[in-house]
Amino acid sequence: MTQSLTIPRPDDWHLHLRDGDMLRAVLPETARDFGRAIVMPNLVPPVLTGADAQAYATRIADALPAGMEFTPLMTLYLTEETDPADVAAAHAAGIVTAAKLYPAGATTNSSSGVRDFTKIYPVLEKMAEIGMPMCVHGEVVDSDIDIFDREAVFIDRVLDPIRKEIPDLKVVMEHITTKNAVDYVKASTRNLGATITTHHLIINRNHILAGGIKPHYYCLPVAKREIHRLALRAAATSGDPRYFLGTDSAPHTDANKLQPCGCAGCFTATNTMPLLAHVFEEEDALDKLAGFASLHGPAYYGLPVNAGEMTLVKHDAAVDFPKAIDTVEGPVTVFDPGYPVHWSVA
Amino acid sequence: MTQSLTIPRPDDWHLHLRDGDMLRAVLPETARDFGRAIVMPNLVPPVLTGADAQAYATRIADALPAGMEFTPLMTLYLTEETDPADVAAAHAAGIVTAAKLYPAGATTNSSSGVRDFTKIYPVLEKMAEIGMPMCVHGEVVDSDIDIFDREAVFIDRVLDPIRKEIPDLKVVMEHITTKNAVDYVKASTRNLGATITTHHLIINRNHILAGGIKPHYYCLPVAKREIHRLALRAAATSGDPRYFLGTDSAPHTDANKLQPCGCAGCFTATNTMPLLAHVFEEEDALDKLAGFASLHGPAYYGLPVNAGEMTLVKHDAAVDFPKAIDTVEGPVTVFDPGYPVHWSVA
Repeated sequence: MTQSLTIPRPDDWHLHLRDGDMLRAVLPETARDFGRAIVMPNLVPPVLTGADAQAYATRIADALPAGMEFTPLMTLYLTEETDPADVAAAHAAGIVTAAKLYPAGATTNSSSGVRDFTKIYPVLEKMAEIGMPMCVHGEVVDSDIDIFDREAVFIDRVLDPIRKEIPDLKVVMEHITTKNAVDYVKASTRNLGATITTHHLIINRNHILAGGIKPHYYCLPVAKREIHRLALRAAATSGDPRYFLGTDSAPHTDANKLQPCGCAGCFTATNTMPLLAHVFEEEDALDKLAGFASLHGPAYYGLPVNAGEMTLVKHDAAVDFPKAIDTVEGPVTVFDPGYPVHWSVA
Repeated sequence: MTQSLTIPRPDDWHLHLRDGDMLRAVLPETARDFGRAIVMPNLVPPVLTGADAQAYATRIADALPAGMEFTPLMTLYLTEETDPADVAAAHAAGIVTAAKLYPAGATTNSSSGVRDFTKIYPVLEKMAEIGMPMCVHGEVVDSDIDIFDREAVFIDRVLDPIRKEIPDLKVVMEHITTKNAVDYVKASTRNLGATITTHHLIINRNHILAGGIKPHYYCLPVAKREIHRLALRAAATSGDPRYFLGTDSAPHTDANKLQPCGCAGCFTATNTMPLLAHVFEEEDALDKLAGFASLHGPAYYGLPVNAGEMTLVKHDAAVDFPKAIDTVEGPVTVFDPGYPVHWSVA
């Protein structure tokens, strides 16, 4: 007997597409399954202005293979010099959907990020006024704060003060990894949503560090202890519309992962939907997958649900996914959950 | 003005020398600075019997370059099949100094280790009777126990019951990494000592995981959060004779470190004594270095202090250490503390 599940075509509310050859290599992996994606602006140099975002959107459109349908939702990279008027104009023109706050140094290509958060209050106030969401990488970067505490400390020291100062600002906590963040979102009354990645529903920190060090499981924010993974699973499968899918899929070549200081990121674009079907089935929550992957994100962003559909099929035999995708820069390993998966996209 | 410090020639109470070409490559790095070392028995296949240990000691002697003086203190690898009579005979003959308990699967080449600890009680009782120490890798391996909890859980579930059952057994907790272990040793009244590695005095888990994943800082037991590093520093520099140096220096080639499942171990044989001088100076405890590196270990093992001396010299300029040592299998990266070091061995 074949089990199948049909849901509205999903979206990815946090995605790294990069640029040039890498963009051309990874874009089809996302466009095959997803209608839209919030595209991260942390290129080198970053996407700082409406003009930058417009140019990047054109490059993405040019890289899309013929016959594929995909809409990139562009974002701006917030810096202490971001011009509120430029942001508002780009948003009004429909060029950008959101702006992204990176604490300086928090993750890949974040050195242009914000050090003094009060300096961006004028642009955040403008965003609140025009209803433009702020996406945030929620980690402090102080070297004296333990890596596993950085998300919880960010909520207390940075995010909560910003939200109290500008309560009308619509916030998306990206790639939450802790029970602290789940609880913070749950306790909010308005203007707070959170994305959860595929890999944070599957791995905890033992997967990175027990029995050998596994750079392909390393991302930022780093996976935490099991209690946090369980809290993320409970949130994702709860049906609560404040939690939705953002894969944070990030293509780093094996050479850049397996080096003395390896890059942060997991590449999950290729197999996210089958993995999510596996996870939601494990949690006896397949009826909640449409909400998490297809409905809650558009609702939070004030966008329509995609018109198309996706059918996921469960097979008796385990499904083979590519171990890696080839790129001009070298192979990019596809996230391996470490167990057989029986679902595929029809 | 040149500062210098002369101490009795130190020993390394926990060392991996491997075998064959690797043994020849790494042995001089230890023999240059250390009089003796407790040599780990986790070869493939492991050092199981007195005859194995005798043969391995001969291979080590054969690999020692002419003109170098070094005495390997041999150990046996405890399994559920270890013969108490063979252990006692090897100890009586002066072939072996201690026996090592690895929980099965805890670290490199530990698959032959112990699963049911009660099965080794007869050999541990024999060791208690003849005054032969047990060295122990103190981590449980249960997949449901968080990697950062495994040492503390081992103390509660495994080590404390063994010590209560066989109070006359002399135990060395190897490479302790937690305040829990420091406190457990401190609270003991007899028959418990602990080795501390060079690298655990220098790095915490942020060094492995913040701003990129750094396999060269990965070892087992893995470095913990800062509070634990500070507890280890306080113990090592306290003058308490129950804490002494065991580098756990382990040569893995860069190819084996920088792979999808990288090997556990830091190679510190080359620069341990300058690094320790740096650490003890930072703690204003240079007067305690002789105890930690040269006196406490022999006292615990009931052996004489080495006859020779070592002088450490502090330079105005930072000292250069080799980035790696060459081996037939490929380069082995030398532990990099991440800051300039001004001490060298005279």
